[in-house]
Amino acid sequence: MAEPEPDRVATRVGEHIVLPGMVSAHSHAFQRGLRGRTQRGGRGTFWSWRGLMYRFANGIDPDSIYALSRHAYAELALHGVTHVGEFHYVHHQPDGTPYADRIAMADAVIRAARDVGIRITLLRVLYERAGWGRAIEDGQRRFCDGADDAIRDADALESRWADDACVNVGLAPHSVRAVSADSLKALAREASRREWPLHIHVGEQRREVQECLAEHGCRPVELLAEQGVLSERFVGVHATHLSPSEISLLAERWVCVCRTTERDLGDGSPDLAALRARSARFCVGVDSHARSDPFEELRALELDERVRTEARNAFANGTELLRWGSDPTPLGTARSTDAIELDAHDPTLAGSDDDTLDDAIAFGAGGRTVRQVVVDGKPVVDGGVLPDRDAIRVAFDHAVRELA
Amino acid sequence: MAEPEPDRVATRVGEHIVLPGMVSAHSHAFQRGLRGRTQRGGRGTFWSWRGLMYRFANGIDPDSIYALSRHAYAELALHGVTHVGEFHYVHHQPDGTPYADRIAMADAVIRAARDVGIRITLLRVLYERAGWGRAIEDGQRRFCDGADDAIRDADALESRWADDACVNVGLAPHSVRAVSADSLKALAREASRREWPLHIHVGEQRREVQECLAEHGCRPVELLAEQGVLSERFVGVHATHLSPSEISLLAERWVCVCRTTERDLGDGSPDLAALRARSARFCVGVDSHARSDPFEELRALELDERVRTEARNAFANGTELLRWGSDPTPLGTARSTDAIELDAHDPTLAGSDDDTLDDAIAFGAGGRTVRQVVVDGKPVVDGGVLPDRDAIRVAFDHAVRELA
Repeated sequence: MAEPEPDRVATRVGEHIVLPGMVSAHSHAFQRGLRGRTQRGGRGTFWSWRGLMYRFANGIDPDSIYALSRHAYAELALHGVTHVGEFHYVHHQPDGTPYADRIAMADAVIRAARDVGIRITLLRVLYERAGWGRAIEDGQRRFCDGADDAIRDADALESRWADDACVNVGLAPHSVRAVSADSLKALAREASRREWPLHIHVGEQRREVQECLAEHGCRPVELLAEQGVLSERFVGVHATHLSPSEISLLAERWVCVCRTTERDLGDGSPDLAALRARSARFCVGVDSHARSDPFEELRALELDERVRTEARNAFANGTELLRWGSDPTPLGTARSTDAIELDAHDPTLAGSDDDTLDDAIAFGAGGRTVRQVVVDGKPVVDGGVLPDRDAIRVAFDHAVRELA
Repeated sequence: MAEPEPDRVATRVGEHIVLPGMVSAHSHAFQRGLRGRTQRGGRGTFWSWRGLMYRFANGIDPDSIYALSRHAYAELALHGVTHVGEFHYVHHQPDGTPYADRIAMADAVIRAARDVGIRITLLRVLYERAGWGRAIEDGQRRFCDGADDAIRDADALESRWADDACVNVGLAPHSVRAVSADSLKALAREASRREWPLHIHVGEQRREVQECLAEHGCRPVELLAEQGVLSERFVGVHATHLSPSEISLLAERWVCVCRTTERDLGDGSPDLAALRARSARFCVGVDSHARSDPFEELRALELDERVRTEARNAFANGTELLRWGSDPTPLGTARSTDAIELDAHDPTLAGSDDDTLDDAIAFGAGGRTVRQVVVDGKPVVDGGVLPDRDAIRVAFDHAVRELA
């Protein structure tokens, strides 16, 4: 890290504990509608889960994605998240025809975040293909278009929201499975020209690695390196199934880990100690919204590394975890004054003193201790209450009933 | 399971969701004072953590163990736990001399649970030795005595609390490391005679397995089988490092898994799919009180099994998890009318319907949705509030400050 590390992140101020707003760098907000609906039916994997997700994704439209996303973001805000990175891939009508307003879906997602009051970085996904030599599946048609479409739509979103300092844009080639090498290079070049973040799923599934080896003769991160993708603006999401050489290539790069979703989907466990030894930088993401608690995500970095290695303290302490969790750099913005307050009297925080407060928060507390959330100087949550919470929930319940 | 499996555990009643009280079958309540205080200092293991725990354990007395335990149990009650199994091992003064009232420490722990209002099964631990051929460490003296002492103290506790239907007693040989084969057999016999539960840490650490092989020429569960310990009243705690033959021996027996602590301590992951295939029965425990949420414990059974195997749905669904989590059989009592109510409008539960409610609760919700807790017909938590919560927290903070 270039900057000096602050000794502590959280500060006790009277009845409250103040800390910077939390960042959730990888979200698919509409998937909040699937919570609790993929947990039965016998043994399965990520791929069987994906079938359920595709069916759900094919029912949504600009109105319902707004309702689903608004609740998802309200729930994040109530748990202390002030900035979300939305990895947005449902672009067109179910048969693949663009909406009359090409960016209607992404625009609805941005409105949802802004109506709740949090910051959003809309990461416009490019999904070109089912995989090398695979025919596009019906369930994927509305995700699919070309690199030029992705860049044009991202430009259009940036223009439309230019007056709102809480909205910004980035590009997201979905994965080396779903995007060709040429398009990876093109998106990296355009993101660099615009100084946008560039996010990509990498090493999420073993099949992705096998397909990359078959198509390119190298592993996913090696391909990204070859295509000039691994810049400072690069964020590799998941980073689960990496070889030692791929981990070396991610030195000083951003990695977004989404443990509550990765545990839920039955993915494996990334080698975070090796990534950290290479000075990788870490962020976390709510991903599928299986759970919406940024503190649970953060401590899972350390806890799942303990399970994997049968050793403790891969990360230095809770201060380090909270620092990673509140850094908006991977979403293309600088630190702001966004802040949250926790209830210092919450029973989960009892027993902490100033020296152990960060550890007590990161390891023992949860987002339900959040009382105040302030974004861009405006209150989003006040006294634990988000003003439109009930109306948001009713609209969400209605949308889920229509879709499920 | 002999009984028919109910289709659902949770029921929607107006604004509330009603389900049976949750059971936390393995607790060391005083360790709540260590939360947030073992998360730095460089790489470590279970054994380095144990050193910190021993230092803390050696400072406590009947007054402070009461204050620590009362807060720990209040926090459990606020998260929906109505019955705790306390695996109690701090019996005597720090040099090993019994208190004038031999059972002063256990008695204080029971009072703490009853003053909060929840049920407690006091599992009186026998800790005879540091290990085969190992000298007792100074930090262990107050845990140590003999099998006759353990049985006598448990009898005394049962007598003293005979008028309180919410208190019962069991025996707990600490582990095959800390208890001789003869004493295992003696405690199993006395527990059987009294119809008490018999709990034991088993397969928690690889070193325990190695020491058992060295002393007895067999693995821990094999030793337990030889000594007649594996009855219907037996509860094996952790069950992390077991061989296939040990898993077979646990067929139809109770296993208590404590994932939030096991993740925190850097233990491994038990093979729950294999145990379940052998019709093992499952309960969960808050153990070190690193976190106090029974729903988080329950979903971790399934989620950590997904991480271990890279597959989903080792357990049937959330209904199965909630059923295991609310069964007091491993604590030696029958099902009661104890019940909890969740806020049906909680944002974490939005989108659930009657068919998916159990899954939404088990996988997506947390103990912070609990609004009412009723034990033995009396309200313990009302409207999310536990009446003495602030005074309990102040006394706890004071005790931690004195001890830390």
